[in-house]
Amino acid sequence: MKTLKEQFDILSDGAVDLLPQEDFIRKLERSIATGTPLRAKLGLDPSRPDIHIGHAVVLNKLRQFQDLGHTVVLIIGDFTAMIGDPTGKSKTRPALTLDETRENGKTYVEQAAKILDMSRTEVVYNSQWLDSMSFREVITLSAKYTVAQLLERDDFTKRYRSGEPISVHEFLYPLSQAYDSVAVRSDVELGGTDQKFNLLVGREIMKAYGQEPQCILTMPILEGTDGVEKMSKSLDNYIALTDSAKDMFGKTMSIPDSLIARYYRYACFAGGEDVARMESELAAGTLHPRTAKVQVSGSLVDRYHGEGAGKEALDEFERVFVKKDIPDVIEETVLDGTSLDIVTILTTTSMAQSKSEARRLIQQGGVSIDGTKITDPAALIDLQAPVILRVGKLRFLRISGR
Amino acid sequence: MKTLKEQFDILSDGAVDLLPQEDFIRKLERSIATGTPLRAKLGLDPSRPDIHIGHAVVLNKLRQFQDLGHTVVLIIGDFTAMIGDPTGKSKTRPALTLDETRENGKTYVEQAAKILDMSRTEVVYNSQWLDSMSFREVITLSAKYTVAQLLERDDFTKRYRSGEPISVHEFLYPLSQAYDSVAVRSDVELGGTDQKFNLLVGREIMKAYGQEPQCILTMPILEGTDGVEKMSKSLDNYIALTDSAKDMFGKTMSIPDSLIARYYRYACFAGGEDVARMESELAAGTLHPRTAKVQVSGSLVDRYHGEGAGKEALDEFERVFVKKDIPDVIEETVLDGTSLDIVTILTTTSMAQSKSEARRLIQQGGVSIDGTKITDPAALIDLQAPVILRVGKLRFLRISGR
Repeated sequence: MKTLKEQFDILSDGAVDLLPQEDFIRKLERSIATGTPLRAKLGLDPSRPDIHIGHAVVLNKLRQFQDLGHTVVLIIGDFTAMIGDPTGKSKTRPALTLDETRENGKTYVEQAAKILDMSRTEVVYNSQWLDSMSFREVITLSAKYTVAQLLERDDFTKRYRSGEPISVHEFLYPLSQAYDSVAVRSDVELGGTDQKFNLLVGREIMKAYGQEPQCILTMPILEGTDGVEKMSKSLDNYIALTDSAKDMFGKTMSIPDSLIARYYRYACFAGGEDVARMESELAAGTLHPRTAKVQVSGSLVDRYHGEGAGKEALDEFERVFVKKDIPDVIEETVLDGTSLDIVTILTTTSMAQSKSEARRLIQQGGVSIDGTKITDPAALIDLQAPVILRVGKLRFLRISGR
Repeated sequence: MKTLKEQFDILSDGAVDLLPQEDFIRKLERSIATGTPLRAKLGLDPSRPDIHIGHAVVLNKLRQFQDLGHTVVLIIGDFTAMIGDPTGKSKTRPALTLDETRENGKTYVEQAAKILDMSRTEVVYNSQWLDSMSFREVITLSAKYTVAQLLERDDFTKRYRSGEPISVHEFLYPLSQAYDSVAVRSDVELGGTDQKFNLLVGREIMKAYGQEPQCILTMPILEGTDGVEKMSKSLDNYIALTDSAKDMFGKTMSIPDSLIARYYRYACFAGGEDVARMESELAAGTLHPRTAKVQVSGSLVDRYHGEGAGKEALDEFERVFVKKDIPDVIEETVLDGTSLDIVTILTTTSMAQSKSEARRLIQQGGVSIDGTKITDPAALIDLQAPVILRVGKLRFLRISGR
C-alpha cells in the first residue's frame, strides 16, 4: 500500500482545491491505519448522459482514488431530473421519467467504466432517499443553511443583483445535493471548480447532521476544442468519450496551440513532469506544436480506443489531410441538414454555379469528400461530423450540417 | 339577505386593506347570485393559544362575515408548531407535541367561540395536508415564488440588510401558509396589517395552482393598554378574552385617553358613526375622557361577560377606586412572587420601615388592599393581578407580582 505522502501527492496532483487539507490528510491517515477505504463522491446529472473528456478530468481523479484502494460513490441525481424545471421556464430541463433516468444512468455508467474501476464503484440514485423525504424533513434540512449563505453563490449573487428571478426551489437543490453527502457518508466530494460552492455546502450540512464533514476536491474545467469556452455539448466544442478514433484524433488536432499542454495534462492525464517538459520544449521551440498535438491526440485515442489506435488514427488523418496537400486553414460553412446530396452541397456552397456544373465536376472526377473521390452525382453525404470537400486541386471547404 | 352594497359596506368597514377590491365585489356578487357562502380564512398559531382583544379585532370581522351567511375557516397551524424552531436558536418556539397542538387548538376555539358563530365555522389543522407533502411537492410549491419576492417582506429585508441570518426554512413557512389557502380554497384571508405580505403570497400561490386567488382583508393592530406597543401577552399590556369582568374593566380604564375611540371601535366594535360622535365630543370637550372610558370599559365587559356585567364591574371599580378618594396617579411597583404576605409587602415596598411597624399599622386598621381592610398580619395577598395597597389616608401603591 502506498504511504500517506505518496497517496497525498497523487491525489492532490492537478487539483485546484483540496479543502481542508489537514482534514484530508487525517482521513487518509486513518484510512491507511484502519484499512478502511475513503468514500469519494461524485454527483451526476442524468439529464445529460453523454460524457466528454471535460467530465473525464474528474473521473480520472476518481480512478486515482480507486487505484489507491478507495471507493467511488457515483450519485445519479435522478430526483431533481425527474422534477425537471417546475417553473416551466427552462426548455432545457424537461422532466425525465423514471425509465429515462435509469436508461441515462446506465449510459453514463457504461461510459464512466472506460475510466473507472467498476469493482470499486458504488452507483446509487438519490431519489432513493430524497423521494421519501417529508416536508418536515425538508424544513429540518433547510433550517441548517441561510439565505445569505446561498446568495453568496456566484450565479445567485449575479442574478439577485441584476433582478433576474431566483425561484425558491433553486435554493433547495444545493441543499439536497448536500444531503446526498449525508446519505452516502461521503469522505470527499469531487467536482469541477464551478462546483466548489455546492461541495462546501455539503460539508456544512454533514456537520449539521452530526457527521464528520467531507473534504472537497475540485479539478479544473477543461476548455473546449475552440480554446475559449468550457467544453460542452451545446457549444459543439466537445470530444465525447464515445467519439470514433478518427473524430477524437481530428478534434484534438484542431485545438489551439495554447491548449496543447493543458489537454496533455487533463485529457491524457500525463504526469506533471512530462507536461512540464512538453511545455518547456514548446516554449523553447524545440518541439513543434503540430508534433506535440499529434502526440496528445494519439495518446488520447490510445486511452479510449486501446493501445495502437492512436497510430492508426494518425495514419488516416495524414492520408486525408496531410498527404493530399490540404492547406492549414480551410474555410468552414454550416449547411441545413445532416445528410445532403453532393450536387446540393456543391451549389449551396457556390463551389459550383449550377446543378449542371456540379454534375460535370463530379463526372470529371474533380470532387472529393474527406479524400474519397465522389463519382455518383446522387451520392448522399453524411454531415453529422464535419467533412472536407475538395473541388479540383485547390478549392477546399470544411462543411458540417445541422 | 343583505344586498351587495350592504355586505360590502359592513365587511370593508374598519379594514385597512381589502385587496383587490373589484375581485372582492365580484366574489360577493357571485355568492349572492348562487347562494354560495364565501370561505373566509384565518390562520392561527397554536403555540400561543391565549386570545386577547387584539386578536379579537380580526375575529369580530369574521363574525360579520358569518352574520352575512358566509363560512369561516380557522386553520390551526399545527404543522409548523410541531416542528418548532429547527435551528434551536429561538427559545420561544419549542416544538409542540400532537397532543399539545390539539389541546391548544381546542383552547383557542373555545375562546374564539365567544365571538364566532361556531355553526358557521370550520376548524382544520394544516398538518392534515402539509405533513403528507413530499419533497417533490415542496419543490413544486417553492418554484412558484422567488427569493427576491420573499426578501421584500419587511422583516426579511431588515434582517438580510443587517446581516442577521435568515434560515432557508423560514422561506418555506410563508409558502406553506399560502398553500393552506389552496388546501381550503379560500375566498378571502384575514389578518392583522402585519400579515399583509403573507396573505398576498397566498394569493399568488393560489393562482399558480390554477385556483381563483383569494382576496385579502387586513385589520389594524390594536395597541396594548400602555398605548404604545402592539398588544401582546409578553409585554403584559393585554386584555385577555378570559379576563375577569373586574380585570377587563380595570385594564380598560387604564388606557391613555388617546386610545379611547380606537378601543371603542376595534375592541367594542362600535359602529363608525358612534365612534365618530365620541371622537368629536371628546375633541370638543363635551365628553369627559373618564366618562368615555367608563362607557368603553362597560361595553367591553358586557360583550364578553354578558349584558349588565359592565355595570357591575363599574360599581365595583367605583367602590374601590373612586369612592375611596384614590388619586388619579398611583406609583407602581413590581415584586418578586405572585403571592406574598402583607408584612413582607409593606416592608419590601418601604411603606413600613420594619416588620413591627408593619404589624402595628395592620393592627391599627390602616392597611387595605383594593379597598378591603387587612386585619390579619399573616394574610397572603394574591399578586397575579395588580392590586392597590393603601396605607393610612394618603399613601397608595399599585403592586403586581412576577
